[in-house]
Parts: sequence; C-alpha cells; structure tokens
Amino acid sequence: MGYTDVDKLAVNTIRLLSADAVYHANAGHPGAPMGMAPVAHVLFNKIMAYNPKNPKWLNRDRFVLSNGHACALQYSLLHLAGYKISIDDLKAFRSLDSITPGHPESHDTDGIEVTTGPLGQGFCNAVGLAIAQHHSSAIFNKPGFDLINNHTYVFLGDGCMMEGVASEAASLAGHLQLGNLIAIYDDNHISIDGDTNCAFTEDVVLRFKAYGWHTEIVDDGDHDLEGIEAAIKKCQAVKDKPSLIKLRTTIGFGSQLQGTGGVHGAPLKEADMKQVKTKWGFDPEKLFAVPQEVYDIYHKHGAEGAAKEKEWEQLLEKYGQSHKTEAADLKRRLTGDLPEGWEKALPVYSPSDAAVASRKLSEILLNKIHEAVPELVGGSADLTASNLTRWKDAVDFQPPSLGIGDWSGRYIRYGVREHAMGAIMNGLAAYGTILPYGGTFLNFVSYAAGAVRLSALSQVRVIWVATHDSIGLGEDGPTHQPIETLAHFRALPNCMVWRPADGNETSAAYYVALTSKHTPSIIALSRQNLPQLENSTIAHALKGGYAVHEAEKADITLVSTGSEVGICVDAVKYLKERHNLTARVVSIPCFEVFDAQSKEYRLSILPDGIPSLSVEAMSTMGWERYTHEQFGLNRFGASGAYKDVYKKFELTPEGISKRAVATVDFWKSVPNIRSPINRAFQQLI
Amino acid sequence: MGYTDVDKLAVNTIRLLSADAVYHANAGHPGAPMGMAPVAHVLFNKIMAYNPKNPKWLNRDRFVLSNGHACALQYSLLHLAGYKISIDDLKAFRSLDSITPGHPESHDTDGIEVTTGPLGQGFCNAVGLAIAQHHSSAIFNKPGFDLINNHTYVFLGDGCMMEGVASEAASLAGHLQLGNLIAIYDDNHISIDGDTNCAFTEDVVLRFKAYGWHTEIVDDGDHDLEGIEAAIKKCQAVKDKPSLIKLRTTIGFGSQLQGTGGVHGAPLKEADMKQVKTKWGFDPEKLFAVPQEVYDIYHKHGAEGAAKEKEWEQLLEKYGQSHKTEAADLKRRLTGDLPEGWEKALPVYSPSDAAVASRKLSEILLNKIHEAVPELVGGSADLTASNLTRWKDAVDFQPPSLGIGDWSGRYIRYGVREHAMGAIMNGLAAYGTILPYGGTFLNFVSYAAGAVRLSALSQVRVIWVATHDSIGLGEDGPTHQPIETLAHFRALPNCMVWRPADGNETSAAYYVALTSKHTPSIIALSRQNLPQLENSTIAHALKGGYAVHEAEKADITLVSTGSEVGICVDAVKYLKERHNLTARVVSIPCFEVFDAQSKEYRLSILPDGIPSLSVEAMSTMGWERYTHEQFGLNRFGASGAYKDVYKKFELTPEGISKRAVATVDFWKSVPNIRSPINRAFQQLI
Repeated sequence: MGYTDVDKLAVNTIRLLSADAVYHANAGHPGAPMGMAPVAHVLFNKIMAYNPKNPKWLNRDRFVLSNGHACALQYSLLHLAGYKISIDDLKAFRSLDSITPGHPESHDTDGIEVTTGPLGQGFCNAVGLAIAQHHSSAIFNKPGFDLINNHTYVFLGDGCMMEGVASEAASLAGHLQLGNLIAIYDDNHISIDGDTNCAFTEDVVLRFKAYGWHTEIVDDGDHDLEGIEAAIKKCQAVKDKPSLIKLRTTIGFGSQLQGTGGVHGAPLKEADMKQVKTKWGFDPEKLFAVPQEVYDIYHKHGAEGAAKEKEWEQLLEKYGQSHKTEAADLKRRLTGDLPEGWEKALPVYSPSDAAVASRKLSEILLNKIHEAVPELVGGSADLTASNLTRWKDAVDFQPPSLGIGDWSGRYIRYGVREHAMGAIMNGLAAYGTILPYGGTFLNFVSYAAGAVRLSALSQVRVIWVATHDSIGLGEDGPTHQPIETLAHFRALPNCMVWRPADGNETSAAYYVALTSKHTPSIIALSRQNLPQLENSTIAHALKGGYAVHEAEKADITLVSTGSEVGICVDAVKYLKERHNLTARVVSIPCFEVFDAQSKEYRLSILPDGIPSLSVEAMSTMGWERYTHEQFGLNRFGASGAYKDVYKKFELTPEGISKRAVATVDFWKSVPNIRSPINRAFQQLI
Repeated sequence: MGYTDVDKLAVNTIRLLSADAVYHANAGHPGAPMGMAPVAHVLFNKIMAYNPKNPKWLNRDRFVLSNGHACALQYSLLHLAGYKISIDDLKAFRSLDSITPGHPESHDTDGIEVTTGPLGQGFCNAVGLAIAQHHSSAIFNKPGFDLINNHTYVFLGDGCMMEGVASEAASLAGHLQLGNLIAIYDDNHISIDGDTNCAFTEDVVLRFKAYGWHTEIVDDGDHDLEGIEAAIKKCQAVKDKPSLIKLRTTIGFGSQLQGTGGVHGAPLKEADMKQVKTKWGFDPEKLFAVPQEVYDIYHKHGAEGAAKEKEWEQLLEKYGQSHKTEAADLKRRLTGDLPEGWEKALPVYSPSDAAVASRKLSEILLNKIHEAVPELVGGSADLTASNLTRWKDAVDFQPPSLGIGDWSGRYIRYGVREHAMGAIMNGLAAYGTILPYGGTFLNFVSYAAGAVRLSALSQVRVIWVATHDSIGLGEDGPTHQPIETLAHFRALPNCMVWRPADGNETSAAYYVALTSKHTPSIIALSRQNLPQLENSTIAHALKGGYAVHEAEKADITLVSTGSEVGICVDAVKYLKERHNLTARVVSIPCFEVFDAQSKEYRLSILPDGIPSLSVEAMSTMGWERYTHEQFGLNRFGASGAYKDVYKKFELTPEGISKRAVATVDFWKSVPNIRSPINRAFQQLI
C-alpha cells in the first residue's frame, strides 16, 4: 500500500503509451488499456513476481490478457517492466513482422504467456496455467521446499464473459477449487455493439458464486489503487477457491469519449490525444513519453523479481541435494525433452496379433508409457470409458477435500466441456512442466475448433485423443459421425492429424505427437477393431506415409488411412481375382509428416506411371493432393450397425474395386501418368 | 391434476417402451428415458397442445430433447401420441434407414422439431424457437387474435448444462425475458464419467437466477406427477422470464442399476428387463407392450390437440378477413417461399461502379431487401459495426421493458456468443416464420462449428454473414485471419460457402442463400474494397463459377474467389506484358453451386487443354479438385496493413504471375491436358 503521485503518474503513463501505440499505428483498441491501466499497474508494479531478464523462470506469477485486443496495454507494461520490448517496438505496433502484433502472440514475444485475442480463450488458458501450478506443486514441493507456488492472474472483459468457452472453464475451475487463480473482470459496460445493456444483463458475480468462486467488487477501478490491491490480497488469502474481482472501470478513461463505444476499437483523435496529455501534465506534442521516475519504480520492481528468482534458484539447488530425482525431473521437463529411453515403452505389434480397435490400442499405449513420461497429464470431456484415455490405477486430479483424487493426480475430469478442455490444455502446455492430452469423439473436436487453432498458432504440444473417428461408430448416427473434420484440421497450419491403421501406426502417431515440442496433434482413432497390417512398422509410419502392400508392375495404387487401409488390403485380393488387376496399398496416417519427407521418398510411395485412388470414409477434400481419384463420403453418414453403414456407402472390397477399375480405365489413355506429388512450384512457408 | 393409476401405467409404459427399444437394438441409452418418463408424460399428456396428424401446425407447443441420446423416450412418446412412428419403427431403432436413428433427426421424422444429440445444441434451438414465437406473436397477433402463443419446452441433462453453448444461450434468454420458454433439467447426478461430483458441482439453479431466469425445483421427479405439473404451471404464469425446473430424477428408474452410470448408455440385461417388467405388472416375456388404456389417454389428448388446431384454423380464417395482408404473409412464410418479386430489390452493379468492400455490399443489399423480405431477422455476435449487418432504422429485438427495442424488432443483439447464435438460428429457422442471418468474423464461425454442422444436417435455411474473410483484415493479425475456415466448411455436406468477388456476386450469393430452403450458407465477405468486375453479372454468379475474363487461345486459366479475383485480373495484364502469356480468369464464388452445374458447363469454364492455377489467400486444400496448381497460404497470416500482408505472401500480380509462369512451364510437356473436372467416377450422394 502507500500509493504516491509516482503511481498515479505511472498509471497515466501506461494509459498514454497504449493510446500512443494505437494512435501511431492508426489501428487498435485504446479503450480497455486506458480503463485497466490502474489494476495493471498494481499487478505489475506491486503484486506480481517476475524477472524480465528471464521470462521463463518457472515460479513467476503468470499474467494472461484474455481480452487480447487490449494488448497495447500488455506491450506497454512489458516495456516498462524491462522485458525485450523497446519504444521502437511500441512504435511498430500492428506493423508487419513486429513483435507487437495486433493481438499478443506467445511464440514471438517475451513475457506473453499465451496467445490471446479470440475471446474467452485466455481465461481458459489461465485456468490451465493454474491447474498446472496446483499439480506441479503437488508433485514437486516438499517440506521446506515450497518450490512452486505462483499465482495466475487473468484480465477479461465482457466479451470473454459472454463466451461459452469461458463459462465452461469457470465452472470447472470452481469445481477444482483453484486457489491460486485470480481473474479480474473489466466491468466497463461497453462492448462493440455499445452498452452491454443490449445483450448482457446477467449478474456476473452471482454466476461466479454459483460456480464456487470467491468474489470481490471494486467500485472505482479508475482511481482506487489501494482498493484494488486490497481486493487482490483478499483473494490471495482464499486458498480453496478461485477468485473473481469485478472491477468497475471507465473505458477510455481520460478521453473525451470515455465511457462510450467510440473509444473501444478506434484510435483517439489528435485533439483528444492532446487534451488528455495536457490534462495529465504530459507534453501534448510528444508521443511515447515515459517519465524517468516511472521507469525507476518498474526497474526497482523488476530487480526485486530478479532477486526473488535468484533466491528461488538457490532453493532449487538445495532441493536438488535432498531430492535429486525430483530436481532432475523438473529440470528435464522444462527443456521439453522426454526422459531418455521412454520410447522403449511403446507397444510393438506383428501381423499375427489380434485385431484391436485403435482407441483400445491407444489405451494399451497409455498404460505402457505413463510411467516413463511423468509429465503426461490426461483427461477426457466426460467420455473416459469411450475414449479409453485413463490408464489403470490413474489418480484423478481433484481437490483433496472431495475425497476422489488429489492435486498430484494426472487424470482430469473435464466434464462435457470440449472447448474449455482444448483451451485449458493450451494453458497446461504453456506452463512448462506438463504434456497434456484430452479425449473426446473426433466429431466434437470441432466444438473446440477455436482452441485447436490457437494450439497450432501458438505452437504448443497438445494431444487430442479423438475416438469414434468415422461412420464406423455406427448406431450413434450422423450427428456423431465426422465427415468434414479431418479436412478441417488438415487445412489448419502446424497441426498434425493422425489416423493410424493399426498398432504400430498408433505407436508412431504417439511418438511423433509426444516429441513434437511445437505442434499440436489430433489422433483419430476407431471404435471398431482393426487388423495388424503386413508391412506396418513404427519406423515406416514415422514417415507419415508408406507402402503397406507393395506389388511389382501394379495397375493402381490404393491410398488410405485408418480403418479403411485394411479394407483396401482386402480389395487387393478382390481386384486380382475378379478383375486381374494388381494393386499396391499405401497408408498415409499423417499428411503433415508425409509432406515433410523428401520428394524422392514421397515419389517412391506415390510413384509416377500408376494411377492412384484414395479411400477414406469421409470428405474427399484434400486427397486430390495425393491421388488421381478419390473415394469417400461427401455426404452425411447414417445410423446403423457399423458394417451395415460401410456397406450402404460401398466402403467394401467390392465398392473399392469398382472404383479402382474405373480409375484404371479412366487413366489408361494417359501416356505418362504424373504423380500428384509433382507440383509446378513450392508453397510458401 | 388428478393423476390416476392409468397415468402411473402410462409412465411405466414409456419407461419400458424406451428400454425395449434400446434392448432390442442392443445399443442406446435407457437411463434418461426411464428417469424422465414422468415429466415426459405430464408434458405430452396433460400440458402440451399438438396435433399428431398435423405435426406442422404453427401454434403447437414445441418440444426439444436437448439430451438427444435419450431419443428412445421421444420416439416412444411420439408413438403413443399418434405421430407417424409405429411399433415397427421402435423395433427398427438405430438400424439403417429407419426413421428412429440413434439421435433424433428432424428432416426424417414427424414430430422431431430439431436435430439433437451434440450436447447443448437443443437447448439453444429451444431459445431460438422461443425467440421466434415472441417475435412472430408481436408481428401477427392483433386484438382478439392471439394467434401465436405457444410454449417451448426443452429437456436437458448434465451434459447440456456443462456445454458452453448452452450457457451462452441461457444468458441471452434471460436478458431477452423469454417468458414462453420452459427448460426442464434432468438432475440425475450421473454423466458418462460417473457421478457428476467428479466434474460438475456448481449450483445450477443459482447460476440460472444470475442469468435472470425464474427457477423451480421438484424433488421427486420419479413419482411426483402433481408436483411436476404444478411447477410447470407456475413457470407458465411467469411471463417476463424464461423458467428452469430442476427435476431430481433417478437415472434408469426401475432397473437394478438405477442411479448408476451402468444404465446410462448400455441396454439393460435380460434378467433386469424381466425383473422391472414383473415389478410393474407387465408381462416379462413381452417387448413393446402398450396397454390399451394408455393408448386411450394419449389418443384422447391428441384429439383435444386436433380440436385446438381446428379452432385455431377458424381463428386464422377470421383473422384473414380483418387482417388480410398479415394472414397472407403468415401463410406465405409457412411455405418457405419468399414474396413474389422480392428479387427486384437486389442491387445490380456495373464495372464502372466504385470499388466497395463486400461487407459493405452486403449492408447495401440488406438495406434494399429487408422490406421485401419481412421474415428476414438479422443479428450479429457483437460485431454489428464491423459486420455491417444492421440495416438503417432496424429495430432491435428486445423486451420492451428495456426501452431499447421491442418484440417485433428484427435485429438480434446476440452478444459475443457465436456458437449460441448459430444454434439459436437453427431454432429460429425451425419455427417456420423466420429466415435468420447472423454476423461475425469468418474466423469465428469456427467457434460455432457444432451449430453450423447441425444447420447442414438438419437442412435449415440459416445465413452466416462472415466478414473479415482473410488476411485482408490486416492489423488484427493471425489470431483473426482465417486460413482453414473455407476448406472446413466446403468439406461440410449441404453447406454453401460463398466468397463473392464484387457487387453482383454478392447479390447472387444472397439470392441463392435466401431461396435455398434446405441448405445453410456462409457468405464470406471482405473488409477491404473490391472492384466491380468486367464480366460479372448476377446470372453468371448464380452458376457458382464463370469466366470473369475470357481470352482466345489462353495459356493458362487463373481461378480465384473474392478479393483475389481482382488481383488475378491485374495479373492478366502483367503476364501479357512481362511474359507474353495469355491468361483467362475464372471466379468460383461457390464450389457447391458450381458442382451442381452440368459437366458440359463446368468444362466450358475449366476447359481441357489449358493448365490452371487457383489463387486464394488461404489454405489451398480443396482447390486441387478444380485446378492443376494451387497458390494460397498454407501457413498462418500476419499482423500488418493489409497491402503489406498481401505483399509479404506474394498475393500480388507479380506473385501470381511468377506461379502462372511456373504452371505453364510445368504443364508444357503434357500433350492433352485434362481438366480436373473430368473424374473417373461419380461420388455417392
């Protein structure tokens, strides 16, 4: 406490730096930064522990700006605090290839914990960060070694409050009693459509009470620094509930348009910029001015943070002496590398092994590797027994008071909350000590599309265990049978979509997913049993595509994934017997990984001179890149026993053969058939 | 009131019919039907007005089963009530091509108002149905003519309660004070992962109070028929709030496994089936038994409903005498046809007209047609000023008490709730008197993927006004710039994705979207200005694809959509001047519509003998179906001024030309270039 004029000056400096950045860029959102500068100042200058010189210090307090459009605020704070953001970077706000893009991107900019902007996501990321902190402290803290005890703070506005994904995460956070999570709600009564009275009149505080949160209200968020600090301290004292502070602020505080939508998403006019600077004793002609005394108090706070980190490093050092294994594990986890030799635990299959559903293969694998990979933290969106995501004897991650698990548990019951699960996993992955996976039906990964997109953009290692991956789920019918889903996520950059055909391919899928530090994965798995294939090995599948069945002088290449590969293998026999055609079969369990192989390799798998036909029980979109002709399902599925459904859509050896014959006939007249692997030019990356 | 033994018998009959259906199919969910049979009986036999012989009677009470997996319950009720579901249909439950699929599908089965199963959706559909009722009554009811006053009832379970999409809709419904909406929450404490105590411990009733709902609690939902009816009547009496009834039930009531997860999603065992039948006085050996007295009370209620409808038809007749225009309008709306001549209001452009952003073209169009198409009800997920979705002088749909609109208003402020907006629009469209459109950024249609999928599957006319459709949005950066979005929705069956290049194409997009009664549309619109193209006419664009720039003996066809078509046209000049190559340019504003044209037509647009290159500022996935080579963006975008971003990714006349030259070179050696329109076989439909 004891706020002085320097603090007031700092608050106004933050307001003006943010407004200047937007004004200078002639684009952006000055309103929320000007409104939230007071609480931001209290947090970054009085409350949070961080070291700007080491933004990755594990026990730093985490800050998430869920209303990411207000990032001029975050960039201004990071600049003042001494992170690698210069005044020039603020001047480059929203310009090409700057580290200060229109919404905060974690992979580009020090001090940005998670990529935000799409509303609701950051709030859920914060829940994930808080889960990670609670879990990691349970795993690593020991008597006398309170190694991991950071808080997670998140700002959110009305937009985030309205998004369902945030509601899901808020309900789960309340259930999980995440005491170290403090959310600060910018109650400024303005969203893009104007006064929130037009669409958002619920009682937010009461809603959060219903979720089991502790709540505080600060009435004058524009001035009451003491009140803000007191509210935060009260929240810190509540250890068994997450906390929400409703902070009444004035959007665009200081502007002539303050309190109106006019200041939300457009720069202040020149005259307005000048009046506000004059009013606050700043030079009206000067942009990006920072009084030295403001730098001073921020650098002092940063130095205190650096000292805290040093102390913490010493504690870790001492910890390493008495808890050698744990310390080594913790340090290793922070590198993102898995424990040496972990991959020896991966199951290996031979063709004589029984047919098994790939969701079951996934379960077998998780049972085998979970001890070798202690950072693996799984879960499901209320489909545990269907997704088979829980290894035997797994402990649930639960508040100990419920008596059904504890904080050290590695299995999260997400509830029927796919979107929040995805966004929470992004937070878990961002924390640094956890490798998250989560299960749902493939069709319902679409509910979480907003979060999956941010996994890919922010380059985090998150794994979706996406079972019931086709019409092969049978009776549940078209509401549950994915058609467009693989095309959707294959079109998403930096996202691996795997659809393994058998045991070895499943092991390969997990191997790549677990070791790709900067790429999320979706592993599509069958409900129905799949045979172990002849030429399938982990090494082959690691290439993303390979020949499952090779043949000299083949008439056609059948190219497939997952449950249809085995049907293609059966079609080979049918084609030979009925049509005297020789077919080879290629499995491409992962487009993205196959695409990364050399052209020479890819051409060896999909060679020139032979026509090719893809077979996949869903949209054919995207297959034209690999094959000449495509057989799939460009319509919705049907409810019925899975074999009946496959038969209805002719995804049988007969049905495939019919189209293979048509393909051979159609390409007969073409003299030098060129493989689609050959392209006129390379794509930009 | 006055429930008798026949009612008890009816309740047990419903329980057993549902359990038999699941047992007979050996798949499905008996638990919720057996738990909810009492409230279902009260609703269908005492409360709701409907005529099973005319399931489309406008003023019927609406029933939605949001926990669609419990559909054995719904099918059983529809059978008893006299809808077109026979005992044989119940026996065909979950079998191929039955009208009783694994989840209820509205386009197949009489009495199913909306397609449910994906959790949370049905609840939102019900909100949409209630909005439609409130709006339609404000439009059509007149003194003495209370034509439209039906209630909407929706069942939902814990799964729906946890889904964010339902939270969004619940908040909006509370804001909108939808008095005729009554939601009945099956509080059975069981979800797939077991006791809800593992993930869902919030206070649901308190949360709904926070949203502004009226709430009731019935403690013994297994037996207390009087209590259930009393609670519903109390809710009906509350006119200015939607109502939630929390009904404590026992999942799988009657089974030996009642109250456990064991009865949620698996058939009862044979012995269990027998014990429950014996216990309730049914023949343990008999399946699908319905006592005549149960049929009797249902047929009596159905006859009462038919009488009510007859009365209503007479009222409508009388209404038509004094309110001729309104009656004609109402009758016309129910056919799904638009008013005759409405299309004359569509704007038409010529090449000399100014360049205009297509989002602005959309605004101009909405301003011109909204009077001609009175069933058009628009809105935006809090991006009105960016989506430009609100015509001048539109009235907001609001409860009159707020003083900012009224029930007759045709513009809905959805708040930042994209997913609920999508699902609510499905309900609006299902009501019968409304044609809904809703705006958000194209990138955030992905948040609503679950709802869009159900628009397509359930064949409803819903229009997404999806602005800021590419990297052309500029400074907001990659968090907001769609890459995978068009591929995603193009891969979705029965969904039209439009990306118009200019004014006439925008008019064509709306024309097809508005007149396609059974198909949803996404219209992707630019933030930046687009020139009016030379050969663009509404008639051309109605074909889904056409030549914007034709040329004799062309060396290459450039194929593009939206904002990139104009850049391709510029590239034509560049190619001629710098490379002496002749290019023609094709625009394909809508794949789905182009695909529906004759092969002859499609080949005239994408002819044999010429190599082709697609140009679109996003994922190239799917373009291989139309062109030989593809230029796009298979990576995330960037934050910066839009022209800088286009330049960075070489989406300029120069960049296009470079790839056009590479394409021509690459295909030079191929003697008879075959257009990709030629395929070896036809896809199944």
